[in-house]
Amino acid sequence: MSLRITAADLPDLARGAAFLGTGGGGNPYVGQLMVKLAMSETGRDLVLMDLADLPDDALVIPTAMMGAPTCIVEKLPQGMEAAWSLRRLEKHLGKKAYATMPIEAGGVNSMIPLVVALRLDIPVIDADGMGRAFPELFHETFHIYGVPGTPMVVTNDHRDQSVIETHDNYMAEWLARGVTIRMGGVAYIAEYPMDGVTAKRVSIAGTISICLRVGRAIRFARENHLDPFAHLITTLSETAYSPAKVIFTGKITGVFRRTTDGFAKGQIEVRELGVPQTSARVLEIEFQNENLIARTQGTTLAVVPDLICILDSETAEPITTEDLRYGQRVRVMVVSVPPIMRTKAALAVWGPRHFGFDIDYAPLDGAVPATE
Amino acid sequence: MSLRITAADLPDLARGAAFLGTGGGGNPYVGQLMVKLAMSETGRDLVLMDLADLPDDALVIPTAMMGAPTCIVEKLPQGMEAAWSLRRLEKHLGKKAYATMPIEAGGVNSMIPLVVALRLDIPVIDADGMGRAFPELFHETFHIYGVPGTPMVVTNDHRDQSVIETHDNYMAEWLARGVTIRMGGVAYIAEYPMDGVTAKRVSIAGTISICLRVGRAIRFARENHLDPFAHLITTLSETAYSPAKVIFTGKITGVFRRTTDGFAKGQIEVRELGVPQTSARVLEIEFQNENLIARTQGTTLAVVPDLICILDSETAEPITTEDLRYGQRVRVMVVSVPPIMRTKAALAVWGPRHFGFDIDYAPLDGAVPATE
Repeated sequence: MSLRITAADLPDLARGAAFLGTGGGGNPYVGQLMVKLAMSETGRDLVLMDLADLPDDALVIPTAMMGAPTCIVEKLPQGMEAAWSLRRLEKHLGKKAYATMPIEAGGVNSMIPLVVALRLDIPVIDADGMGRAFPELFHETFHIYGVPGTPMVVTNDHRDQSVIETHDNYMAEWLARGVTIRMGGVAYIAEYPMDGVTAKRVSIAGTISICLRVGRAIRFARENHLDPFAHLITTLSETAYSPAKVIFTGKITGVFRRTTDGFAKGQIEVRELGVPQTSARVLEIEFQNENLIARTQGTTLAVVPDLICILDSETAEPITTEDLRYGQRVRVMVVSVPPIMRTKAALAVWGPRHFGFDIDYAPLDGAVPATE
Repeated sequence: MSLRITAADLPDLARGAAFLGTGGGGNPYVGQLMVKLAMSETGRDLVLMDLADLPDDALVIPTAMMGAPTCIVEKLPQGMEAAWSLRRLEKHLGKKAYATMPIEAGGVNSMIPLVVALRLDIPVIDADGMGRAFPELFHETFHIYGVPGTPMVVTNDHRDQSVIETHDNYMAEWLARGVTIRMGGVAYIAEYPMDGVTAKRVSIAGTISICLRVGRAIRFARENHLDPFAHLITTLSETAYSPAKVIFTGKITGVFRRTTDGFAKGQIEVRELGVPQTSARVLEIEFQNENLIARTQGTTLAVVPDLICILDSETAEPITTEDLRYGQRVRVMVVSVPPIMRTKAALAVWGPRHFGFDIDYAPLDGAVPATE
């Protein structure tokens, strides 16, 4: 089975990708424009191939944007960068790629592989290696379940390229991040080359079509005067991204954000409205590209790898960290992630302790008090 | 013609290389140990091949250490890094190297290619691309006279590697520096691959044997109770590194040094002795890995590309920037460089203005007042 994507689907896909981006992943609007241009310039149909349909011996080369989401909105891509990375990796491996695949279902990285697929006329697999957005290259099920991240290629808009080969995936992230910083904070990569049988073992299936479904659900609710939050939670309950809950409603009263070490890092403060301000609760969210933890009065309400999504309180439009502003009225939704993302091996890589928080991950149901 | 180097020559070679390193180039003692070990482990003879003897169609791959001299003394190499870079570049080019060559005649980089030659059993050419030490990869006659610096390879002690291909040599330096910083501030490279006919056109011939000659001259003077400074100046007068002069004698009274952006940067203050300290002249030297400019009371006494060498005032032993300490008694010698290093094209790349000094290069003779 495969899913055809048309230009009319792109706004929904971008919206859903911003949701799974949990604040990061890069602005999917940029990616949407790139896909649209590639569609019109190539005249090709975009078909998402089911992970199950990938031949066992086919070479898959995942592609992505790498860098700080704050940079991608300032330094727009030329459009061919990720395709050039894939081509360079093919040259290094001495083998053509059968297909590309997202490494990250959130943000712009749900879109970049679609651009690659259109430009190079190869299939793109409906799966990814994060099931959301995460800041670093070893935050991938590909890494967690044993695939070497290198050889990998980093390319910029001048087609300057670096082929990186390392003894482990942490060093790959470290060197590629250094190259990305020197390329202006944003670059385009091809990494974790693998065969079909491996891809089927280590990937999170169906995540791009889930983005589309999430984006559609939010739009459908708006157009039909439904509560978009309730409708979204119902839609998610039909997927592995469940349960989901709104944990906080309020106004953005603080945004501290800096682009450092190749990441956008900072904190967000959301203050409760409709109560005397002296007794208003305050929600604090910390992020490294993506929202990592949500706390109020010392109580942790949500933590990675669960999704912490800041949504416009009227429209449920996801707001990425680089678009957060003082005064925005928002609701914060927390979403439980699929079991493959919550294994012991996975939590060792992207659980709260990896990000320096001295707590253990607890599943959303029961452990996190819902406010409504 | 070729020159055989034995283990007994290494201290002289290292001393001469420290001299041509003008404070930078990395500590040649580390390189000396590496060459000695490679000699004893391989049992091979080390033969410096004359540039003129290189066949026109032979592939030469220059090799070097890259990074901050302050780092190399803290993070000693494994020994095979530069050879691994050369091998990786051969693989990329699909061609074996006939020989290696220094990119830099100063400091540790006079030694690294000797290690490569011994380990891989290939000749090393008696020539280089700087005629001294310089901080950056485009500070090479190879670049000045039109050779592309990439494809290049950067390798660390874990054999992590990055193959870099860029649209110009400035970007090559920029990306390779980023990788080097992430590898701990020091890494090993193979770059500017070229054929023999090109190497003969763009290289500075005989610089490694000049290092040996300089090192020998200083030792000879010491052993024979001659003035090592006068003897050194006489020796240099028989080479293209002439004229040479001692421009200042005094005590190190200030060393400001930090390892930043992948370089050792700072200033040195030398104060005249034997006069009332209120009227003592002070010499200020600025460096970026290498000594770049020497000024006193607003007057420039010497500037790149001329060599500015800080020597122990008794023994004439060259002191590298990472070994400078308060209280050392020193003489500062300035040496004119060969004509190929002072062309308009060369000065555009490594003249004073490139390093941010608002003055033009003036040849040493006549323009620089000598103090003795």
